[in-house]
Formats: sequence, C-alpha cells, structure tokens
Amino acid sequence: MIDQSVGDVMTQSVQTITPEVTAREVATLFARHNIGSVVVVEPETNEPLGIVTESDVLREVAAGADVESRQAASFLTSPLVTIPTDADIHAAADRMKEHSIRRLPVIEDGTLLGILTTTDLTHYLPRLRNTILRDRSQLAGH
Amino acid sequence: MIDQSVGDVMTQSVQTITPEVTAREVATLFARHNIGSVVVVEPETNEPLGIVTESDVLREVAAGADVESRQAASFLTSPLVTIPTDADIHAAADRMKEHSIRRLPVIEDGTLLGILTTTDLTHYLPRLRNTILRDRSQLAGH
Repeated sequence: MIDQSVGDVMTQSVQTITPEVTAREVATLFARHNIGSVVVVEPETNEPLGIVTESDVLREVAAGADVESRQAASFLTSPLVTIPTDADIHAAADRMKEHSIRRLPVIEDGTLLGILTTTDLTHYLPRLRNTILRDRSQLAGH
Repeated sequence: MIDQSVGDVMTQSVQTITPEVTAREVATLFARHNIGSVVVVEPETNEPLGIVTESDVLREVAAGADVESRQAASFLTSPLVTIPTDADIHAAADRMKEHSIRRLPVIEDGTLLGILTTTDLTHYLPRLRNTILRDRSQLAGH
C-alpha cells in the first residue's frame, strides 16, 4: 500500500491530438472533457511527440496569437517527461517537483497507457493517511 | 506531522485581480508568474469575490470570446470554495475531490492568506511517505 504504483493511481483514459489541431480546438477539448492536457501523437504511428497543457494554450493567448489558426505543433511541450506504470507514486511526485510540471504521461515501449496528474495524487492522499493511522494504532497496540 | 495543516503547505503569495481585468490580461499574469489561478477581489474593500482559473479562461477561448475585451467579472467562478489555515491537508484533499477543483483559497475573517493547490499537496507527498517508513521501522523494532 505505501509504495502504490503509478499504474494504480493514474488516469487511464488520455485524450490525444495530432500536431495540426488548433489552440481553439484544444481549448474546446479541455472544456468538453474537463481535462487540463492532451498528448500530441504522430498521425501515422501514434507515437507520442509531446504534450499540450492549459498553460501552453494560455501562453499563446497571452502572446496575442490567433487561436483559430495557431497549431499545436508550434506550442507543444517536448520532449515528454514520462513515468513507467510500475514506478512508485512518491518517485512520480518527486519527478513532477523536479521538472515543475503537474502531469506525467505514462508510456511504456512507446505506447501511451495513461497520465498521472497532481489531481490523481491529491485524491490518493486521504488513503495514504489511513495507512499511517492504521500503522500508528498497531504501534500503540504493542 | 501526519495532520499537517493547510497553513504549513499552502502557497502564501496569491495574485489578485479586480473584476474588470480581461481574459488576455489574466493569461499574461498566469504566464508571467507561472501560476494557474488568480483570486478576484472587490477593488475598494479587497474582499474576495471569486476565482479565475486556467480552465475558466480556456472556456472563453473555446467559446470564441474576444479575449481582449472579455472581463473576469463575466467568467469568474463564484462563490469560492475555501479552507481555513488550521484545517488538516487531508480534509483539504477531500474537499477538492468533492468539488472537482484543484485550488482552495485560504481565507479567514474575509482576508485572503494564501492558496492551497494540488501541486502543493503533491510536493508534500514524499514527506508523508517518510513518516510512514519511520513508523514502519519503529514497528519492526518492537
């Protein structure tokens, strides 16, 4: 339980886009699916190329870019910082902090399996607390 | 240590705006300060009125709004879901999950003291793990 793995906590369904999708279309995907990022994949091979986050799109807005024509290829973040499914979630948290990011695509052998976000880790936090309390009560019982 | 309080983990500096600030100006603030939300305050009294997150601005972009003229007053989220400084962080995590939100302004007596985000909680996770491991080693020592 303490070393819960990324695969247990991650969000399994990840939206993907191809590089020619526009900033406005990305904003629409975010709103429709209530998400904060999409993984950008190569259209032919489905190979993950990068990620577009809310911050990436908003940087374009801040710069005054035309969101109707600006394509993901020009503002995606690459290379991807990723994590394997069997990594423990504390290593994932450390990796997010190190890179100042909030989302880690979970990729193995070039295949996108899910995404781990700060929201997933926050939802896990109360369970981790219960583990501690159980341990404490065992300690007290000795 | 286990019941760490919100005040210990929150981000103390919070950017605020007044309701007439435009979507584009908000996007610029997010990019400049590397943040994902601003608290909207009443200009005269500084009273917190609501919050504008990345998602709020991107919903305007998705809807094709004119980001140069659209003002925060028309797209802020209100009423605020807040948390006191002395709440424990697990209660805060539960509150975020319950409301499907990622940021809790920390407000006491109408005064904005900070903001707690899923990022703050993620950065705290490895410390919580260390607490568990310390407990486990005590258990093993019995």
